[in-house]
Amino acid sequence: MAKNFTKREENYSQWYNDIVQRADLAENSSVRGCMVIKPYGYSIWENMRDVLDKMFKETGHSNAYFPLFIPKSFLSREAEHVEGFAKECAVVTHYRLKADPETHTVVVDPEAKLEEELIVRPTSETIIWDSYKNWIHSYRDLPLLINQWANVVRWEMRTRLFLRTAEFLWQEGHTAHATSQEAIEESERMMNVYADFVENYMAVPVIKGVKSPNERFAGAVETFCIEALMQDGKALQAGTSHFLGQNFAKAFDVKFLDKDNTLQYVWATSWGVSTRLIGALIMAHSDDNGLVLPPKLAPIQVVIVPIYKSPEQLAQISEAAGKIVAELKEKGISVKYDDDDSNRPGWKFNEYEFKGVPVRLVIGPRDLEEGTVEVTRRDTLEKSTMQIAGIAEKVNNLLDAIQKNLFTKALNYRSEMTTKADTWDEFCDILDNKGGFVLAHWDGTTETEVAIKEKTKATIRAIALDSVPEEGKCILTGKPSHKRVIFARSY
Amino acid sequence: MAKNFTKREENYSQWYNDIVQRADLAENSSVRGCMVIKPYGYSIWENMRDVLDKMFKETGHSNAYFPLFIPKSFLSREAEHVEGFAKECAVVTHYRLKADPETHTVVVDPEAKLEEELIVRPTSETIIWDSYKNWIHSYRDLPLLINQWANVVRWEMRTRLFLRTAEFLWQEGHTAHATSQEAIEESERMMNVYADFVENYMAVPVIKGVKSPNERFAGAVETFCIEALMQDGKALQAGTSHFLGQNFAKAFDVKFLDKDNTLQYVWATSWGVSTRLIGALIMAHSDDNGLVLPPKLAPIQVVIVPIYKSPEQLAQISEAAGKIVAELKEKGISVKYDDDDSNRPGWKFNEYEFKGVPVRLVIGPRDLEEGTVEVTRRDTLEKSTMQIAGIAEKVNNLLDAIQKNLFTKALNYRSEMTTKADTWDEFCDILDNKGGFVLAHWDGTTETEVAIKEKTKATIRAIALDSVPEEGKCILTGKPSHKRVIFARSY
Repeated sequence: MAKNFTKREENYSQWYNDIVQRADLAENSSVRGCMVIKPYGYSIWENMRDVLDKMFKETGHSNAYFPLFIPKSFLSREAEHVEGFAKECAVVTHYRLKADPETHTVVVDPEAKLEEELIVRPTSETIIWDSYKNWIHSYRDLPLLINQWANVVRWEMRTRLFLRTAEFLWQEGHTAHATSQEAIEESERMMNVYADFVENYMAVPVIKGVKSPNERFAGAVETFCIEALMQDGKALQAGTSHFLGQNFAKAFDVKFLDKDNTLQYVWATSWGVSTRLIGALIMAHSDDNGLVLPPKLAPIQVVIVPIYKSPEQLAQISEAAGKIVAELKEKGISVKYDDDDSNRPGWKFNEYEFKGVPVRLVIGPRDLEEGTVEVTRRDTLEKSTMQIAGIAEKVNNLLDAIQKNLFTKALNYRSEMTTKADTWDEFCDILDNKGGFVLAHWDGTTETEVAIKEKTKATIRAIALDSVPEEGKCILTGKPSHKRVIFARSY
Repeated sequence: MAKNFTKREENYSQWYNDIVQRADLAENSSVRGCMVIKPYGYSIWENMRDVLDKMFKETGHSNAYFPLFIPKSFLSREAEHVEGFAKECAVVTHYRLKADPETHTVVVDPEAKLEEELIVRPTSETIIWDSYKNWIHSYRDLPLLINQWANVVRWEMRTRLFLRTAEFLWQEGHTAHATSQEAIEESERMMNVYADFVENYMAVPVIKGVKSPNERFAGAVETFCIEALMQDGKALQAGTSHFLGQNFAKAFDVKFLDKDNTLQYVWATSWGVSTRLIGALIMAHSDDNGLVLPPKLAPIQVVIVPIYKSPEQLAQISEAAGKIVAELKEKGISVKYDDDDSNRPGWKFNEYEFKGVPVRLVIGPRDLEEGTVEVTRRDTLEKSTMQIAGIAEKVNNLLDAIQKNLFTKALNYRSEMTTKADTWDEFCDILDNKGGFVLAHWDGTTETEVAIKEKTKATIRAIALDSVPEEGKCILTGKPSHKRVIFARSY
């Protein structure tokens, strides 16, 4: 058990911060709201990025790179987009500093003022569609399927490591299509890619759905989303995929000649996930002993710790460990043998447990004699003894079992934490005392949604794609409703 | 031969721009000095990045991510660094926009002025050493070997795609060491990693050396560099690796307890290469038919084009091509079969030639009968006939041969273009009429170096590590010199 470490029940928020800090994932920097992603945290992001990048390429997308800066006037082009994004932005107004001989510091050179201010991209629809204007002329240039890995900045006032930071890393896909139908299919396809990634790699179950008009992306006609549930009963939006209609094509005048030689506006989508997913990963699985990582994304899947009393014993154990390392690597398993003599085994056990390494193998002198290792799995902390013969296959199966167990556990938790509410009192009681997803009827108006949010802090997280028609009455207004939607308090 | 395409001899600069644009590598954006890296150009960068990233990890480095923004005061901390970098920078002064009801646009909110301006990083030594202060306490925390892949901004007034842009992509390594010796070894190691990459992947020979004090990185004690020669006889700095002494440790107060329990300042290095390398790659090998790419970095290594007169013929050829594709992929060769019916074979030949695809295979009806393909290599444009049996092995050998030939060709060119000058007239004559590297004596003073630059626009590109001691007289002042240094005009 890690010392001086907050338990989930004591203070969930502090528990999260402790994990991020003590597992060396990230820290706050000297720049307000901007985080430093430390090597261990970044290696989780690299694993996520590599899997997602492969999925994007397999669905026909190419990567490209567009400018960090957006001319201020671009943000005003699309009427709704400007409402949503032209607010808390980092604004570049000058392009030069000069030395101040009096104070021996540097000051902004007032003569180097930009004619038009530049905004550090909060999202790139505008600057990208400004390029697409020159790339798209005919139906033969479509579909255009592009993704960008980039940093973006949104000047958030209250920040939390990974979950909400002024600067964050993400990918943003921006595609152009000849028909509305194709663009909608693309939006759904990418929502499904995200769901596949979050469920099968992060081991976090998600609800697929669409957002209510009030929660849609600024400039979107429809926002598809995947919503996950954290261990404190709050929802977390894990990814969104937007059908943008012709809004950006019209704002940036992007037309194409169709097969009938008629000029048409292009149809668009955009979709993104960010380093926020690391926050979701931490909160979905970790426990009072620290971080728990799903094997498919763990930077170190297996750690081997030797226990010895003499250099001779260590040499013998290291020889056996070397063979195990080679066998595991052969199988594509990432493994670390920690024979650092300056830390005691107990310290190492705590350290790797805290860092969420899925499997720990311990080899002592008696194990050597008997051809065994002691195996501890991080998810359940169960210990067992394993024969070294055929170890790669067995460890591989164990990693699979851990991956599945984490998903099942999270799925069971979500089932327990998904509750139907039919009266306002019930609705408020669930939100206040149980949390989780609340399935309730809603009259379909933004007015009601906003009123519910003001009264309870809960929002409509998703209108699930698989929701079944059911006649009922709005939880707040009593007006007729034809299906339940999913309410929750959220990150 | 590509049409409407400038030849190198006509206008080298226009030739370069034409290649960048027509091979779909990059283009200027609406933001002054910022480029859009298009999918084909970005895929070359992805290949470069993947190879370099592997090399960094094999030499013990981990990736991390630090903030985009640097508080203005940080730049003043290191006296020389501020001189070099606190000049042409993008300065963030405000964090909010607001709607202007009168003009229906957005304006900068004057009330959202930052207390201290933020600089968009031109390089990250300062913000990173501000973090290292909290990470390094004891000799056991050292060495700290970290790399970052990131975008940086330097407000260049005259920009050229890839070669000099306001925003560019790069990697920057920042390491911390317990001793001066270790840090110097690290700087040299990374220079060697860069040289390995540029010579063996980019097929561009480089000179390894150190910079003169005047050309050193701002804040460095020693700058190691690799210098390449372009086809117009100008030099291009392909990568630098800096030994920073204790300058940044002192500026950010980063000390560690050594093994004797004494507090010491930490020793530092930093090293980087950028998307500029794509410019070098283009200029080193390309010809009057367009881009020429070394096979090891080419996004498409082999293209297969069918020639047919009927759908039946196409079907037969596609079957044979499918088998070849499978065999090549099996061998790890990236291959594209272009059976797009809307473009003619001749158009395709030009297109892939222009885009620098190393090998083209053409299959027509007669080839099918004879079990052969027509093979054209991009570097020499030589055609030959190849039996389909065992084709993967043969194509693989051909790709190796092309890779070697490009390097040899570039090396021969550099040898021809490296000239000794012993008098001032000779020196000027070579620079004006021949170009290339000029080996000349220099008296070792910055004053003389600056005077030579003012008179000829040539700078000392490197003091080669393998330069042999030789007594001589400075090309400008006649003062004694003990070895030749390398002068050139440069990008």
